[in-house]
Amino acid sequence: MKNRLKVLIIGGDNRYLEVIDKLAANEIRVFLAGFEQLSFENSFISHREIIEVDFSKIDAILLPVAGTDSEGNIETTYTDKQLKLPKQRLHETPEHCVIYTGIANDYLENAAKTANRKLIRLFTRDDIAIYNSIPTAEATLKLAIEETDVTIHGSNIIIIGFGRIGITLARVFAALGANVTVAARKSAHFARINEMGINSIATEKIDKVISGMDICINTVPHLIIDTNIIDNMEASSLIIDLASKPGGTDFDYAEKKGVKTIHALGLPGKTAPRTAGEIIGGVLLELLEDSMQRT
Amino acid sequence: MKNRLKVLIIGGDNRYLEVIDKLAANEIRVFLAGFEQLSFENSFISHREIIEVDFSKIDAILLPVAGTDSEGNIETTYTDKQLKLPKQRLHETPEHCVIYTGIANDYLENAAKTANRKLIRLFTRDDIAIYNSIPTAEATLKLAIEETDVTIHGSNIIIIGFGRIGITLARVFAALGANVTVAARKSAHFARINEMGINSIATEKIDKVISGMDICINTVPHLIIDTNIIDNMEASSLIIDLASKPGGTDFDYAEKKGVKTIHALGLPGKTAPRTAGEIIGGVLLELLEDSMQRT
Amino acid sequence: MKNRLKVLIIGGDNRYLEVIDKLAANEIRVFLAGFEQLSFENSFISHREIIEVDFSKIDAILLPVAGTDSEGNIETTYTDKQLKLPKQRLHETPEHCVIYTGIANDYLENAAKTANRKLIRLFTRDDIAIYNSIPTAEATLKLAIEETDVTIHGSNIIIIGFGRIGITLARVFAALGANVTVAARKSAHFARINEMGINSIATEKIDKVISGMDICINTVPHLIIDTNIIDNMEASSLIIDLASKPGGTDFDYAEKKGVKTIHALGLPGKTAPRTAGEIIGGVLLELLEDSMQRT
Amino acid sequence: MKNRLKVLIIGGDNRYLEVIDKLAANEIRVFLAGFEQLSFENSFISHREIIEVDFSKIDAILLPVAGTDSEGNIETTYTDKQLKLPKQRLHETPEHCVIYTGIANDYLENAAKTANRKLIRLFTRDDIAIYNSIPTAEATLKLAIEETDVTIHGSNIIIIGFGRIGITLARVFAALGANVTVAARKSAHFARINEMGINSIATEKIDKVISGMDICINTVPHLIIDTNIIDNMEASSLIIDLASKPGGTDFDYAEKKGVKTIHALGLPGKTAPRTAGEIIGGVLLELLEDSMQRT
Repeated sequence: MKNRLKVLIIGGDNRYLEVIDKLAANEIRVFLAGFEQLSFENSFISHREIIEVDFSKIDAILLPVAGTDSEGNIETTYTDKQLKLPKQRLHETPEHCVIYTGIANDYLENAAKTANRKLIRLFTRDDIAIYNSIPTAEATLKLAIEETDVTIHGSNIIIIGFGRIGITLARVFAALGANVTVAARKSAHFARINEMGINSIATEKIDKVISGMDICINTVPHLIIDTNIIDNMEASSLIIDLASKPGGTDFDYAEKKGVKTIHALGLPGKTAPRTAGEIIGGVLLELLEDSMQRT
Repeated sequence: MKNRLKVLIIGGDNRYLEVIDKLAANEIRVFLAGFEQLSFENSFISHREIIEVDFSKIDAILLPVAGTDSEGNIETTYTDKQLKLPKQRLHETPEHCVIYTGIANDYLENAAKTANRKLIRLFTRDDIAIYNSIPTAEATLKLAIEETDVTIHGSNIIIIGFGRIGITLARVFAALGANVTVAARKSAHFARINEMGINSIATEKIDKVISGMDICINTVPHLIIDTNIIDNMEASSLIIDLASKPGGTDFDYAEKKGVKTIHALGLPGKTAPRTAGEIIGGVLLELLEDSMQRT
Repeated sequence: MKNRLKVLIIGGDNRYLEVIDKLAANEIRVFLAGFEQLSFENSFISHREIIEVDFSKIDAILLPVAGTDSEGNIETTYTDKQLKLPKQRLHETPEHCVIYTGIANDYLENAAKTANRKLIRLFTRDDIAIYNSIPTAEATLKLAIEETDVTIHGSNIIIIGFGRIGITLARVFAALGANVTVAARKSAHFARINEMGINSIATEKIDKVISGMDICINTVPHLIIDTNIIDNMEASSLIIDLASKPGGTDFDYAEKKGVKTIHALGLPGKTAPRTAGEIIGGVLLELLEDSMQRT
Repeated sequence: MKNRLKVLIIGGDNRYLEVIDKLAANEIRVFLAGFEQLSFENSFISHREIIEVDFSKIDAILLPVAGTDSEGNIETTYTDKQLKLPKQRLHETPEHCVIYTGIANDYLENAAKTANRKLIRLFTRDDIAIYNSIPTAEATLKLAIEETDVTIHGSNIIIIGFGRIGITLARVFAALGANVTVAARKSAHFARINEMGINSIATEKIDKVISGMDICINTVPHLIIDTNIIDNMEASSLIIDLASKPGGTDFDYAEKKGVKTIHALGLPGKTAPRTAGEIIGGVLLELLEDSMQRT
């Protein structure tokens, strides 16, 4: 009999339903802690109390996107029970066992280190970030349509940053007929933006063009949209800041000046949870298959 | 002194603010009935009670997008007064005076006919319909993003009809990475759809492909999405019907089968009133200028 | 036994190899006159001398794209014999027999009329014209790349006409990153051009913008690029005229002024004969199937 | 008086005409060695024999794209004289003097090292490579249109490599309606290809899909299209190899198997010399301005 992979999933939200399906569809044995409110009709899927789990047989552990809180508590959606990272039992797992999480904090990193197990932060991976840029861009588009009284088509939109999300945003808004300008810093980025048929501007010169912009979308995680830039914006402009907390906008000053701001975080899970789950499931599956081939 | 055009606007909603601005910016004298709650600082714009108007000097009358109701009442947004079409006084206008409306009913058509004045239904014009297809497509996109738990990118979407709105919808959804199929009837339409790199299917064969579709968008104003098609849809599918009342969907049957439906009408004015106003203003201005050159 | 369609093909060039294949693949009996230099290993295909043909069994006759010359001679590619339209024998065909040609002249029209048989000019059909616009646009693109020392990306290109070919040209050149302006006349065309995110100008104002254009592509079959427009062009500009003879350019004047011109005709057959043949075969097949259903 | 930059250009082809114009237009003093056949009417441009040059005043030296040959000879286009790198005199230049070339060989590297001057290989820079990918992609497109008898629209095209050129090729061919598959290796590349709405395949699995491909475009500079892949190709396929010598194709084997191959190198300079010159000039100008600000 084929030696099947065994994955323990502890907690998670509706995105994980797709992950569970995907793993089971690929004949991976999935043990679920924190999903008692759901029932699955697939013989590869079974519920488990953490206490019952035989960790010596577990090849991988999947934690929620958010990992744990600073005391090891795990967020759940489909149980009333309180779950905690089974820190002490990690060392019972086989040496090759990998712990997967979306993001990690000190608590989780220490737990993995102490147990001497590999910890993979899925959400820092390039592939996940790029796949997630798609639902992020669509959700941003939805906000932009909702919060303005003009069409995206023909609007002047500045996108700050040309990284994994910025590239996708630029393509999406340009595809809808917006007049897009991307603010970037690197000479290679300017070349690529030009090749895409999009306008560009050096980040330090945003203040020179901001007054004509209907929408300003930021992806850079440090203060960019400062008092100087806000002073140059029209009060009717909209700022959508996608950068992780604390964002790249002086929100207080924007409010004072009457410029509407939206700090939009965690968009993939909110807008397209099924796609977000497929993204996690798809990458996780590849990582599991790779790790299996190596052993 | 240049003989300026004089336009009387009776009623209308926020879209007309752009229209008023545009006309005045082009040095057309604008008389407003039904806008007392607003004040304008432009010498080309002035408020008027209908009773005060010197109709013999009016070159054009603009009614709301909806025209009048069946008794001649006119919809207003910025007044508490009840306005009515000044039917009896239309014959006081110069012979060249044109009455502009979005759409028309029997009452309005009769009134124009009796007064022997030209009535132009702006919303049946190809140019307005095509320009309006842009905010319509964006609003449809917003609904599609909102009402599904997957991304548009990678979704299977069928668009029924390849007219003025269908073409725009096809381009917008394909640009976002959806896998678009357009249902059409004419051989020239199939050729154009193919040229656009989009899949097509004969309208009478929709039932053959509908089961794989995440979203079905209808633009055809008669019953297309019938019991047969609905029977072949997945319950998780979404129907967005853009066709004017009564739409092209058997809504009752869809509800019975648990298929979510949205009958979305008047989207440009709801989603992008400023753009919608610019569209009306832009076309109206051209028509006024044309008519002026002819006189 | 199923009553199979019988099609007689008289002459034609390499495009017709695809047509022959397509018909035979759909189990239509194909009789070939003028293809002796080729051999086919398909039981649905057979060579015939015109004199041997039993016209009373022929459901359709396909002539070359060019039809006949003014004396009824038929262009051939794969025979040394001289072929002529069997004018006298057309009345032997069944009444439902249809004669297909690309284009027709008086001789051919008279022959069909005299025999009282339906004549279909395939190349005047919208669907064929739209499908053919694809190889035409690609061949135009190739010329534009070849004949200029700059990239299409970033070039200023004006396309005159927004019909079946103009629409495709606009999309293709814009997709490559050119800065495209389309010259048109109809208000609905301006709306659609705008929706496509492309610049537009009224045809009568081309002279106002022509000086900044690197390439001027004409699709309108009467004199548009006249002395006035040529006087306003840079000598380094390139004119590609796609309109059928005599084209829409004052070629002599352009030459005198040192502006390079290319009058490019029959591009699909020259650039992509296999695709051009598939287009003809595809539409012909549909027409044959439709006609069969009606009988 | 402003202290102007002084640049010495030694040799070069028609691309350098744009470079010279651009530098002079930005008020940089340009000394030309190897351009006597041309005359310039710009006071910032002057011809010089190398022997006359006061190297102590030279801020930058620009060599041809190809640099020097292995004996220091420099390629020229606009002179009959034989030019050689003035190796011994490089140390006379100010310390901040930079030597710019397209590519470099041992001879040139040693010369710069011996003189202790910075050598910049422009063509290894990301920005230049990305800008050059545009004329490269257009030239590849032209070849693909020319060398096949079908349209790009609807063709199956595989692009091997998703680097600076591969990304541009993917966008260009997809924009024309080709059915594009990109062969890549990195998970982040697969994510980006997916986001662009394009198919992908792992490079090691090309042989699984190659049989359906009309055109295979390689950008990877080591053997990829080997006997195994060629054995799986249709004889009617076309290989366009853009990788620098010796390319990524087993050309002998392809020839033996009757598969047409084109090893296309140096496309920007051949297809769009003016654009190619603008690219070099644009980046050079920025580098010069940056270096000036630092001194």
